[in-house]
Amino acid sequence: MPDTLPPSLAAAARAGAARLPQIAILGATGAVGHALLESLESRGFPVGGLRLLASPRSAGQRLPFRGQEITVEALGEDSFKGIDLAFFSAGATLSRQSAPLARAAGAVVVDNSSAFRMDPAVPLVVPEVNAAALAGHAGLIANPNCVAAIATVALAPLHRALPIRRLSMATYQAASGAGAAAMAELEQATAAALRGEAFTPRVLPHPYAFNLFSHNATMDPETGHNGEELKVVAETRRIMGLPELPIGITCIRVPVLRAHAMAITLEFDEPMAPERARALLEAAPGLRVVDDAAANHYPMPVEASGREEVLVGRIRRDLGDPSGRSLAIFVVGDQLLKGAALNAVQIAELVLRG
Amino acid sequence: MPDTLPPSLAAAARAGAARLPQIAILGATGAVGHALLESLESRGFPVGGLRLLASPRSAGQRLPFRGQEITVEALGEDSFKGIDLAFFSAGATLSRQSAPLARAAGAVVVDNSSAFRMDPAVPLVVPEVNAAALAGHAGLIANPNCVAAIATVALAPLHRALPIRRLSMATYQAASGAGAAAMAELEQATAAALRGEAFTPRVLPHPYAFNLFSHNATMDPETGHNGEELKVVAETRRIMGLPELPIGITCIRVPVLRAHAMAITLEFDEPMAPERARALLEAAPGLRVVDDAAANHYPMPVEASGREEVLVGRIRRDLGDPSGRSLAIFVVGDQLLKGAALNAVQIAELVLRG
Repeated sequence: MPDTLPPSLAAAARAGAARLPQIAILGATGAVGHALLESLESRGFPVGGLRLLASPRSAGQRLPFRGQEITVEALGEDSFKGIDLAFFSAGATLSRQSAPLARAAGAVVVDNSSAFRMDPAVPLVVPEVNAAALAGHAGLIANPNCVAAIATVALAPLHRALPIRRLSMATYQAASGAGAAAMAELEQATAAALRGEAFTPRVLPHPYAFNLFSHNATMDPETGHNGEELKVVAETRRIMGLPELPIGITCIRVPVLRAHAMAITLEFDEPMAPERARALLEAAPGLRVVDDAAANHYPMPVEASGREEVLVGRIRRDLGDPSGRSLAIFVVGDQLLKGAALNAVQIAELVLRG
Repeated sequence: MPDTLPPSLAAAARAGAARLPQIAILGATGAVGHALLESLESRGFPVGGLRLLASPRSAGQRLPFRGQEITVEALGEDSFKGIDLAFFSAGATLSRQSAPLARAAGAVVVDNSSAFRMDPAVPLVVPEVNAAALAGHAGLIANPNCVAAIATVALAPLHRALPIRRLSMATYQAASGAGAAAMAELEQATAAALRGEAFTPRVLPHPYAFNLFSHNATMDPETGHNGEELKVVAETRRIMGLPELPIGITCIRVPVLRAHAMAITLEFDEPMAPERARALLEAAPGLRVVDDAAANHYPMPVEASGREEVLVGRIRRDLGDPSGRSLAIFVVGDQLLKGAALNAVQIAELVLRG
């Protein structure tokens, strides 16, 4: 499908010429921006040129990529000229402003913000789950919420084998979901607590040292659920292709740096043996089963951090469903990688494959 | 019911004399032991004399109580002579060994271990929930698992109004549940991580700095659930008087010092409006509703720590149950107080009231 390639690459492909894509990263200096650089590098992504874009405040910073240092530029009118592929990770407002510019310049945009995720014209993609949704994209692809991306990697292989009809989730979300400044605040607040000193939170609304709190997204008065919970529900349904799937959810921020954990209960149409679920998860892409009862070793954030695979374990029958139709699992994934940058790079790989 | 009083106090009561009870604490130097001293003091518990008992290793330590210092004694054959009321918090094995001695000496035992919790002859009591179970006790009363004690304070007032028929819980458990040494390890491991130094866990089986892990209790191969999860299920059922209640549960240890949090979904026999649940919880003993959507302020461990009340918030309809019969709540309680010492002291208050 060369028509889904960035136009200039498609033209080169039609002419039989190979040309490496010109890449831009908007929001290069943030936590996800750094992770994008890491993922492009670690996956050997083809890069003909790399333009790092950020706010004027961050312009001039130099970031390492493949042994070079690249100077961050302030976002401007001409920033996307000559760009084939742009990764956006600078918030929904900037995504809405910049997407038309980048697309007019011929770039395919992979957007990490929530701006377009529920737009029916924009595919919302987790490559292991719904790569087919990319077909015929119009140059703009949405990268999902971190919880939805991580959870669906573990849910999809089970659902393919036996339909899921209900989910219940409680999350244990890391600081990184609120950005690099929140990660720094967790460390600073904790250091102050250990010294017995007071600390006033600036980035997050609550004390973070040895504490946890309901996710800081704005609360929806009608449902009593916060914006993060509603995103996870809507995006999980969309990625799984199950627009009516009932999903109960509680999103909690825990004092962990960069990997999200989630306790998930799945109700299937019929009973599913835990052994069968384990075999399905072991065979599925993007997952690693960590489920060693003898060693009491299950998925942990410190072991998921910096790792591409989502970890899954505690695969067992749910004691809360006497019908035997429900299983419980525990899932942990790097919020900056599978929850953001890695998934975006995987989408870009599919786009380039055309 | 003077027959439920410790014998010597019952005799004094029958003779019309008031006599303050002689108290012993077995396991006085542990985290719960310290919290017992705090609770006896803060609640103005009547204390005629106080004997602090521990292993020979801890004997000779001096602990403060009401402005005095009391020397810890090694547990011996005669430790319970003259004792009216003994609090045990030194593990199930020592509880099994010492309970017959203390009872033979005429003491009523309130046991914080798991040794007798499922013994049909021993009441398992959360005073706000099932104080009536104390009637006719035989001198030995079990204090529940911390999660079960904290959860049932919030569940009982709802269940009394409308029967619960199913529960789902995910816990966020503090270090204190594994003792004072685990609390110290969390601080030491975190300090080392902040300095960029390696740290080898000694108390808990996994790295604890900015990390979380499946509860360290031994795994039951048959159910795939750990001992903590099975305790919470069995004890919650027993305290609520619902021996068949299906309870799905995941217990996770988080890097928090001394308050447990839990995301709970309750399925009722019929729909329950969140507003009605909130009113019931606001009127219930031992609870404080913290549920301010505008300020995004909900129960947090740092606000529950050192506090007697269990905090409850995030009271809302469960999006995972289209029938409208399910609610979700978020509950946080001090693991050392309502989860252990305070509940034991409240039981003792009921015993003394006779």
